[in-house]
Amino acid sequence: MEKLSVIKVGGAILENKDSLCRLLDDFAALPGNKVLVHGGGRAATRIASGLGIESQMVNGRRVTDEKMLDIVTMVYGGLVNKQTVAGLQARGVNALGLTGADMNVIQGYKRPVKDVDYGWVGDVDCADGSMLKTLIAKGIVPVMAPLIHDGMGHMLNTNADTIASQVACALSAYYDVTLTYCFEKPGVLRDADDDNSVIRHITRENFQRLVQEEVISGGMIPKLENAYDAINKGVTCVMITRADNLDGSRGTLISG
Amino acid sequence: MEKLSVIKVGGAILENKDSLCRLLDDFAALPGNKVLVHGGGRAATRIASGLGIESQMVNGRRVTDEKMLDIVTMVYGGLVNKQTVAGLQARGVNALGLTGADMNVIQGYKRPVKDVDYGWVGDVDCADGSMLKTLIAKGIVPVMAPLIHDGMGHMLNTNADTIASQVACALSAYYDVTLTYCFEKPGVLRDADDDNSVIRHITRENFQRLVQEEVISGGMIPKLENAYDAINKGVTCVMITRADNLDGSRGTLISG
Repeated sequence: MEKLSVIKVGGAILENKDSLCRLLDDFAALPGNKVLVHGGGRAATRIASGLGIESQMVNGRRVTDEKMLDIVTMVYGGLVNKQTVAGLQARGVNALGLTGADMNVIQGYKRPVKDVDYGWVGDVDCADGSMLKTLIAKGIVPVMAPLIHDGMGHMLNTNADTIASQVACALSAYYDVTLTYCFEKPGVLRDADDDNSVIRHITRENFQRLVQEEVISGGMIPKLENAYDAINKGVTCVMITRADNLDGSRGTLISG
Repeated sequence: MEKLSVIKVGGAILENKDSLCRLLDDFAALPGNKVLVHGGGRAATRIASGLGIESQMVNGRRVTDEKMLDIVTMVYGGLVNKQTVAGLQARGVNALGLTGADMNVIQGYKRPVKDVDYGWVGDVDCADGSMLKTLIAKGIVPVMAPLIHDGMGHMLNTNADTIASQVACALSAYYDVTLTYCFEKPGVLRDADDDNSVIRHITRENFQRLVQEEVISGGMIPKLENAYDAINKGVTCVMITRADNLDGSRGTLISG
């Protein structure tokens, strides 16, 4: 099986011109098949604020009423996505910007209201890798915005980590997939205050031990659980690292 | 050669929920290969105004400074494009939203400053139909926003009529293409005040005569010249009609 990298980067990287340029350079330099998944929350908050609309976050998720849905649709699917695509085209990467609605790549449903009404936030029903595979085989590099659709004419706001995981799992039917999550730290740290304490390799076995020993705790536990969920669904391995390390030479490798 | 329809609709149709629904229904009902090209000027003006930015038009074209480029990128490439894609997916059409930057379908250059500095407005260098053809052959329906890129990392604002004509010409290498321009009248009229006076068929021969007789005059002359330009570049015929007549049963047919 050919290798393929799915790289997820947050919106903060894309908001700053210098870090965006660096990211696009690094992503363009990655050899082989690849997919970029981006966020855009900061830009959405900025544009919403300019339009006099306040962003409301609950548990780190954006409450998405009808007006906010228009904003994330235009900011994620238009502004951030197309600027990224144009930037990659300038670097010789034949990028194609997509949401889950395009070619019906990711369909889902409006999150049912329990304690919180998140509005037009979507949970994923299914992701289809077949059209992506056809395009990737022709040298196209998909660039995915964190939006899906409900099959009934509505766009839905979806977390970029989820998009990355869904696309990685769908493509693992055709490729040996590495899924890379970029965040603000160089990897999973033994000591949260020491960037040089990156744990280089986590397996299922030492993951349990690291949790018992409380080396891994807090928000890092769901991150790693999500990584193992992707591995259970076919992804070969997951890398957690910083965006300035796309080649994976540093960072934490998570495998089965 | 298989037939293919390229349909261009203005932003006004897409801004109104009823006319948008009608358009999507009619477009979904069109048999065979098809491409939709949309505008979005009204939505861009509305969002710009909400952000406190005034829209400046010269000769019917939007002056596009850096801030306005961000707005048209998000409104055309995000809001209008993705709402249209989601609406078509809901009608069983496997739509794919694109700008000229995506898969490098249309590349161009910033319009040189002569009398007017239009800013980030683009003129087209070349359109590439090969990837579109591959996708269309797999049942995908491209939905094109009026944006191209310069190959150096910038998006460019481009007239939707131009996008439609460029895509139609590029695809005429593979298909027998009909290019349909929707505007506010049911066709080219003999009497501007009588919607029932549609001229059903214009050929090169009677076009000259109609101009000499001043039946066709004013803004309709460049429209028809553009139509003949597309026909010279390979398009089989051009239809000028209203968006409620996508099947071409009324309207003006322009042929060689």
